[in-house]
Amino acid sequence: MVTKLALLGAGRIGKVHARAIAEDKRARLVAVADAFPDAAKAIADASGCAIRTIDEIEADPNIDAVVICTPTNTHADLIERFARAGKAIFCEKPIDLDVARARACLEVVREVGGRVMLGFNRRFDPHFRAARAAIDDGTIGKVEMVTITSRDPGPPPAEYIKVSGGIFRDMTIHDFDMARFLLGEEIATVMASAAVLVDPKIGELGDYDSASLILTTRSGRQCVISNSRRATYGYDQRIEVHGSLGSVSAENQRPVSIEIATKDGYTRPPLHDFFMTRYTAAYAAEISAFLDSIEAGTAPSPSAEDGLIALALADAAIQAVKQGSAVTVKY
Amino acid sequence: MVTKLALLGAGRIGKVHARAIAEDKRARLVAVADAFPDAAKAIADASGCAIRTIDEIEADPNIDAVVICTPTNTHADLIERFARAGKAIFCEKPIDLDVARARACLEVVREVGGRVMLGFNRRFDPHFRAARAAIDDGTIGKVEMVTITSRDPGPPPAEYIKVSGGIFRDMTIHDFDMARFLLGEEIATVMASAAVLVDPKIGELGDYDSASLILTTRSGRQCVISNSRRATYGYDQRIEVHGSLGSVSAENQRPVSIEIATKDGYTRPPLHDFFMTRYTAAYAAEISAFLDSIEAGTAPSPSAEDGLIALALADAAIQAVKQGSAVTVKY
Amino acid sequence: MVTKLALLGAGRIGKVHARAIAEDKRARLVAVADAFPDAAKAIADASGCAIRTIDEIEADPNIDAVVICTPTNTHADLIERFARAGKAIFCEKPIDLDVARARACLEVVREVGGRVMLGFNRRFDPHFRAARAAIDDGTIGKVEMVTITSRDPGPPPAEYIKVSGGIFRDMTIHDFDMARFLLGEEIATVMASAAVLVDPKIGELGDYDSASLILTTRSGRQCVISNSRRATYGYDQRIEVHGSLGSVSAENQRPVSIEIATKDGYTRPPLHDFFMTRYTAAYAAEISAFLDSIEAGTAPSPSAEDGLIALALADAAIQAVKQGSAVTVKY
Amino acid sequence: MVTKLALLGAGRIGKVHARAIAEDKRARLVAVADAFPDAAKAIADASGCAIRTIDEIEADPNIDAVVICTPTNTHADLIERFARAGKAIFCEKPIDLDVARARACLEVVREVGGRVMLGFNRRFDPHFRAARAAIDDGTIGKVEMVTITSRDPGPPPAEYIKVSGGIFRDMTIHDFDMARFLLGEEIATVMASAAVLVDPKIGELGDYDSASLILTTRSGRQCVISNSRRATYGYDQRIEVHGSLGSVSAENQRPVSIEIATKDGYTRPPLHDFFMTRYTAAYAAEISAFLDSIEAGTAPSPSAEDGLIALALADAAIQAVKQGSAVTVKY
Repeated sequence: MVTKLALLGAGRIGKVHARAIAEDKRARLVAVADAFPDAAKAIADASGCAIRTIDEIEADPNIDAVVICTPTNTHADLIERFARAGKAIFCEKPIDLDVARARACLEVVREVGGRVMLGFNRRFDPHFRAARAAIDDGTIGKVEMVTITSRDPGPPPAEYIKVSGGIFRDMTIHDFDMARFLLGEEIATVMASAAVLVDPKIGELGDYDSASLILTTRSGRQCVISNSRRATYGYDQRIEVHGSLGSVSAENQRPVSIEIATKDGYTRPPLHDFFMTRYTAAYAAEISAFLDSIEAGTAPSPSAEDGLIALALADAAIQAVKQGSAVTVKY
Repeated sequence: MVTKLALLGAGRIGKVHARAIAEDKRARLVAVADAFPDAAKAIADASGCAIRTIDEIEADPNIDAVVICTPTNTHADLIERFARAGKAIFCEKPIDLDVARARACLEVVREVGGRVMLGFNRRFDPHFRAARAAIDDGTIGKVEMVTITSRDPGPPPAEYIKVSGGIFRDMTIHDFDMARFLLGEEIATVMASAAVLVDPKIGELGDYDSASLILTTRSGRQCVISNSRRATYGYDQRIEVHGSLGSVSAENQRPVSIEIATKDGYTRPPLHDFFMTRYTAAYAAEISAFLDSIEAGTAPSPSAEDGLIALALADAAIQAVKQGSAVTVKY
Repeated sequence: MVTKLALLGAGRIGKVHARAIAEDKRARLVAVADAFPDAAKAIADASGCAIRTIDEIEADPNIDAVVICTPTNTHADLIERFARAGKAIFCEKPIDLDVARARACLEVVREVGGRVMLGFNRRFDPHFRAARAAIDDGTIGKVEMVTITSRDPGPPPAEYIKVSGGIFRDMTIHDFDMARFLLGEEIATVMASAAVLVDPKIGELGDYDSASLILTTRSGRQCVISNSRRATYGYDQRIEVHGSLGSVSAENQRPVSIEIATKDGYTRPPLHDFFMTRYTAAYAAEISAFLDSIEAGTAPSPSAEDGLIALALADAAIQAVKQGSAVTVKY
Repeated sequence: MVTKLALLGAGRIGKVHARAIAEDKRARLVAVADAFPDAAKAIADASGCAIRTIDEIEADPNIDAVVICTPTNTHADLIERFARAGKAIFCEKPIDLDVARARACLEVVREVGGRVMLGFNRRFDPHFRAARAAIDDGTIGKVEMVTITSRDPGPPPAEYIKVSGGIFRDMTIHDFDMARFLLGEEIATVMASAAVLVDPKIGELGDYDSASLILTTRSGRQCVISNSRRATYGYDQRIEVHGSLGSVSAENQRPVSIEIATKDGYTRPPLHDFFMTRYTAAYAAEISAFLDSIEAGTAPSPSAEDGLIALALADAAIQAVKQGSAVTVKY
């Protein structure tokens, strides 16, 4: 069986998924839709798929699944439409910037028995997966503390900041999901400190660029997150899990790993400078997992509920900064 | 000029300082006092110094300086006595478990023009000093975020927990001082999450064994601290400073640094298992700095004020856990 | 322009190249030939190319280039045929196990103006390329000493050993080429020590499984090579270049790079266990360079001459072991 | 029992041993002799020992042992004298630059039942010892190949080169001993390639500054040594042992181990720049082992025979370079 997919949204991340689909023998990209004809054409040319409208894709009974890479504010609507149309859905995070809207969307999904997988790609990174395996197999014992360091090479453009929903909904949301992936227990409270240290313009737009968080579970497990919109040395993505029997850590990845020794010391090149090169393997594995769930007819994971919880954690963080106290997360 | 020192307290840490004094040509240990004659004798035998009472040491005009390694509850009294006696003072942290008592002690020191250095030995670790140098020389730009990981190999005995003042006053106090050493700006607020995850007995004694903290300065710089009373792999002591131009980190130290590769992977031995072996060089450099300040007649650093501030931060952390909100530090 | 390629030989390495061709937009695989119909069919199915005979491929004017992945003893004949047919040629190493035959083949290539690239894939590994770049840009100064460690996870089957030409022609040949790639000067003499330490069966077949070599250039630059047919921890592939201003090294690569810390120490997973996963990026870059040379009409590199020299070095090593002295290489 | 030692030779290395003796409670330095009164006085002042002549030391029945740190050309004579005088002897390497003289010296030692330990300090480095332990406890299986990288930060002065006996007798001699320490089997043959790549003046003095060696044992185990008189990045001292079950390696040591990450990459400071700081722990452990052997009345190790063998290997290497072939070592 070959799963026939349509891609909604032919931008940067759409291209990544199109490539992953092309390399997986179990899937075929049969259609692409985008408001910008040039973007759609680029993917159609590369993959040999047709350019279609969203309506056409929705109506086509031969299309099994859609991959939603359109702007955030269209996600909830598209999820609802394609869940109703009976198609398996892979949607980039977040469901919506508004928790209430996301919750309503999930109601629809549940009602119609929709299958939605959310694009928390980092769960599929081979290094983070291996760290999780060291938890699952008991190697490090009972999880006690998680440390997540997550820093972008540089701040996004102002236009993006404006519509991003802020650092917690846009950037930390990945770390919230990773925290849940590693803690093994739901997060009860969120504390956060945030500031504008990198670029005053970010502050003028009402956002922060530097944030530290403590997530605490009911039993007292703790997760510390350190975020910055700037890391001169590349895309800084590290996790560490401390347990009763030991720790496991996944260090940064670099495209080239030579070391040069001179009178000035030992130097290794910077890290990957972009999430697409850093998470290439994760993006491929993510689509593969989506295809797995379609083939097996099982619920995809991470689910839309996972997306909703991450969003609720982002909201709690925003509130925590404002009121200067720990916020109890509402699920 | 050879500085003549007396050692008050001949326990574990007293021995460390006695050895550091023995190796420094500018100093001579001339007296040791301890309530336990055997302990005093061991040091007297090794160093060739005399066993004296505290009164005798106080009265001896030939003694230039004292190194206070007695139990915590005697620190403030001894500092006051020897400040009045005009002797230079090196005192192990903390000044006292009670901030008010510590503050009163400092009043006396100021009044009599006493010179007091506090034993925050980690400031003298060559790796942490090199990290600080990378801040001071501008290499990493303006400091934005500090991460401190500080975990003991295993919990101390219950007897110690009882008199320690709790994890924040006993263990995190070093990290508070390190945060100040690295942040370059006073800490304005403290948030903390703490739990008993390692040993229920610690909880029964009213203390925690696992804690996460966020310290925030006035301008919004953030420091995250991760503490645990257990790390199966050894004494886990790491710092990382993230700045506008880059980051600097000081990784863990191990006594033996071979790597063995077999079919099961690549393995390196555990870390140092004790603060004395981990910080050997720091202890020696600390006493050297104390002697420097005596020779130069300058104010020793870290000062008693530094000790008082660290204590105030510990109190703020205790309160922060209790009330679940950020506590503004009172200096 | 899209270069049309035919693949000769649809085995393990043929599949690697077919995939690399599929991922490069400038190329199209149009034909595959293999004595085993099933092997050819697998590639034809995956790539959509036709199954053809070697004769048909040779005669087809629409085919621009061939990729030769057939057994070693057919390489020289095929190179001659396709050079005469005017097609660009990419051929897996070696040209032949016999230097005289290889030399005769090159004569034909020169005569008919053939363009032949030899599959020394390691020159295209991003890490080794970066090391070479640190030589080329002067970072490490004048090259003085090269160290190559090259160990297979385990010995090949006896059937392979029999036809491989021995460890120097089969395994060290890559290191000879890498030495030349890094030394920047032709090798004048070869010394070698070899033994059977891994598996007596290898000795019974007249081969060695453990070898150490010193290659010396005319000006006295030295390269040390350490080879073994067994490395329990994975595919061990390291280089180090020592120059007048410093050194550059390319360490081993591993598929997963977590580290687990327990009471037994710090453990990282084993290395890649196979050349195909270790050199994935190199194989793609190699085909890309072949296509570059076709597009630009330039001489491909590494050339057939590079293949011949590596073979001469292997012969010199065999002789060096036998006579226990340094052998002067004949070019 | 406190062992009373005399130090012969108060130069650089003499000071190192004087300090090691001072820190060991089982020993007391009671006398020092040196042709330069100032050098002797410096040690006498620091340690409180007396300045004596060699004759006086020889005649003093209260002196149990001597530590010989005089110029190389006096070693053999002094060993003979003090062996006859019944004193335990620690002597810096080598016994003599001339194998015949060294052999004659050992004859005397054997005759009079002398106890001589030779200063191959690297055997006492904690990292190299741990590597050896991984051999002894079977972790890496049967030893097959050893790799030793040994490079000085910079060439010694011309005056030293003249009397050093050449790179093999002066520098590689440590690596010969280390090879024997790790191979677990005597070396049968030596191959070597050597050149002047660092400094032409070294060549004018008839010596080399860059050398590569292959040592082969009777059963075919191989050791590769890479030597250079210059390493801009510090004192480069690495070993690796490859066995049937795995490998063990001891990487370089650095005084400060921070890492700085900026847009230009990740940088760690250079290595130790001197053998004294690199091998501080080894020098202390070496003297401790000497005292152990005196206390226990056992034969010290490494022995004078070990010194003689290392010298024979150096001679073999010199001959191997000259004749361009493997030289069978004569023991």
